[in-house]
Amino acid sequence: MKVGIVGGGIVGLSVAWELVRRGEQVTVYDRDPRRGAGRVAAGMLAPAAEASFGEEALQGLMLESMRRWPGFAAELSAATGMPLGYRTEGTLLVALTEDDLTEVRRLVDYYLRAGLPVEPLRGRELRELEPMLSPRVRGGAKAAGDHQVDPRLLLAALRSERLPVTWVERDVEDLSSLRDDVIIIANGIGIGRLTGLPVRPVKGQLLRLRGAEPLLTHVVRGVALGRHVYLVPRADGELVVGATEEERGADTTVTAGGVLDLLRPAADLLPGVAELALAETLAGLRPGTPDNAPILGRLEGHPHGNVYVAGGHYRHGVLLAPVTAHAVADLVTKGSTDVDISAYGVGRFT
Amino acid sequence: MKVGIVGGGIVGLSVAWELVRRGEQVTVYDRDPRRGAGRVAAGMLAPAAEASFGEEALQGLMLESMRRWPGFAAELSAATGMPLGYRTEGTLLVALTEDDLTEVRRLVDYYLRAGLPVEPLRGRELRELEPMLSPRVRGGAKAAGDHQVDPRLLLAALRSERLPVTWVERDVEDLSSLRDDVIIIANGIGIGRLTGLPVRPVKGQLLRLRGAEPLLTHVVRGVALGRHVYLVPRADGELVVGATEEERGADTTVTAGGVLDLLRPAADLLPGVAELALAETLAGLRPGTPDNAPILGRLEGHPHGNVYVAGGHYRHGVLLAPVTAHAVADLVTKGSTDVDISAYGVGRFT
Repeated sequence: MKVGIVGGGIVGLSVAWELVRRGEQVTVYDRDPRRGAGRVAAGMLAPAAEASFGEEALQGLMLESMRRWPGFAAELSAATGMPLGYRTEGTLLVALTEDDLTEVRRLVDYYLRAGLPVEPLRGRELRELEPMLSPRVRGGAKAAGDHQVDPRLLLAALRSERLPVTWVERDVEDLSSLRDDVIIIANGIGIGRLTGLPVRPVKGQLLRLRGAEPLLTHVVRGVALGRHVYLVPRADGELVVGATEEERGADTTVTAGGVLDLLRPAADLLPGVAELALAETLAGLRPGTPDNAPILGRLEGHPHGNVYVAGGHYRHGVLLAPVTAHAVADLVTKGSTDVDISAYGVGRFT
Repeated sequence: MKVGIVGGGIVGLSVAWELVRRGEQVTVYDRDPRRGAGRVAAGMLAPAAEASFGEEALQGLMLESMRRWPGFAAELSAATGMPLGYRTEGTLLVALTEDDLTEVRRLVDYYLRAGLPVEPLRGRELRELEPMLSPRVRGGAKAAGDHQVDPRLLLAALRSERLPVTWVERDVEDLSSLRDDVIIIANGIGIGRLTGLPVRPVKGQLLRLRGAEPLLTHVVRGVALGRHVYLVPRADGELVVGATEEERGADTTVTAGGVLDLLRPAADLLPGVAELALAETLAGLRPGTPDNAPILGRLEGHPHGNVYVAGGHYRHGVLLAPVTAHAVADLVTKGSTDVDISAYGVGRFT
């Protein structure tokens, strides 16, 4: 079977890889895969730390994908010979003030209700784990089950020449130009234009800081004076600071306000941040849906015939890539899947 | 007379221009004139607003140069046909809190003692002049005599092919390689290496923000929660935000802390800053001396013979360029000058 995938980002390429593993012939269409939201993702694999309140319905899918991640990462590394920056140190939740701690405690309760490992810690205990944290940090928790991956390495591996995927470097304006037996639409914020589905861009700004030595060993998800920030250390001394969430249409301008909203809480929680070089500022567009859950399923009644949608993953594309790849590949090759995706069908928006 | 000038920054080229106007043959040596401190200067021409306490001794020279600036600008524009972005709207001194206002009042007193025009204003009056200022602004003043120039345009004009200066694109490691009758050393932080004089680099970080419309018409020098910042609007919608002062040797890394120290007070005083694009981040090195006053004079007893120094202008290179050009050209062509530069001789450090 010839499968065409529109969109060469993390979601599209994860589906592509799963399909080639199942013996299908896959063509990926993307004029410039560097546009994807994965380029500005931090790569936190934290089904609960990343879950906002109101997204609890997504938790089952997140946990399922989280379970799949270690195997997904190991197999992708083995298949491509490429590292993914997969790390398992866990996440620290960190609050600057007593008010911020109230916010973190709500998150801790969320972990507990989900049956996920989380251990409340005092400021002193957090500083024992991460000595560079501010002495002002009041408290927080450790979520030992959270992992991380480097999205840039992940993308590089998924684009490896060792995966037998055909690349066509062009934008798809119209499905009628494609001759594949099955088409999977996985082009993020471009899904709306191709399908009419309500996928909107949610702007995220992100910073890459750089120092000689890593300031952290854990991923830190912090709250400082009500501002949320995450700090993701890489082994080479890079510290990723993210991310704003802005409803501004398809604007990708890096703004003074976005940078300030990230640097301020970062420096409050981790004063050493001030000494780091501001190596890169970025803005990307996450594909959001009205309920901010992904769209996974068949587009019924499409004139092209076998058309599926895999997108709208919002802030969760990296985390949800393995389960998305598995479920969508099931749909394409078998017509059904053992993953419960009943809440994520196309039909809820048509 | 053949004059060689080491250093093609604002100071060196201003001296060069004055000498060619006096009929001398000038060669400028600089491998990469884009390195100069002028590249990261804001171009405020504010003899008092820019004067720190402790620099009062410099005030006479600043006022003399300020008086020369309108003519210098007009003649340079006429000679080159190039605009300099010369503007005369004056500076607003702006304080966020009552404590910040105490700081601004000290500056106002400084203007008054110097006999410079300055008018204390309440928050409401400042917002009438600049409606985008934060409603939280407590008060400040207007210094109507302050002007501004765009240092990039100034540098471009001073490099104009219409000025008959010979350029040699190389670094001068040793004066013995030069065959000019007179040598003027004007290469900023490089003066120390060539002469042994105590000129040190003082790092300054600066941001260029960009919006569709200018947020300000005046230059704003502000104090917000104890942090000093200046905001220099350009007609094309650019807003220059500067500048840190850091004693870090010759380091030109743009740091998270530097950017934060500029954006935080800028956004406190002018909330619309948050919406602007962060177009450019820069760091440059000002040439500082032990008393932070410039070095203007003859280097006595140098084996090369006629060697002069024009440098160490610290934060005041743009402002002091006209008076420096006049005084140093006088020294070179006449052996003395009518400008009182007795406090700035080479001898005070040898």
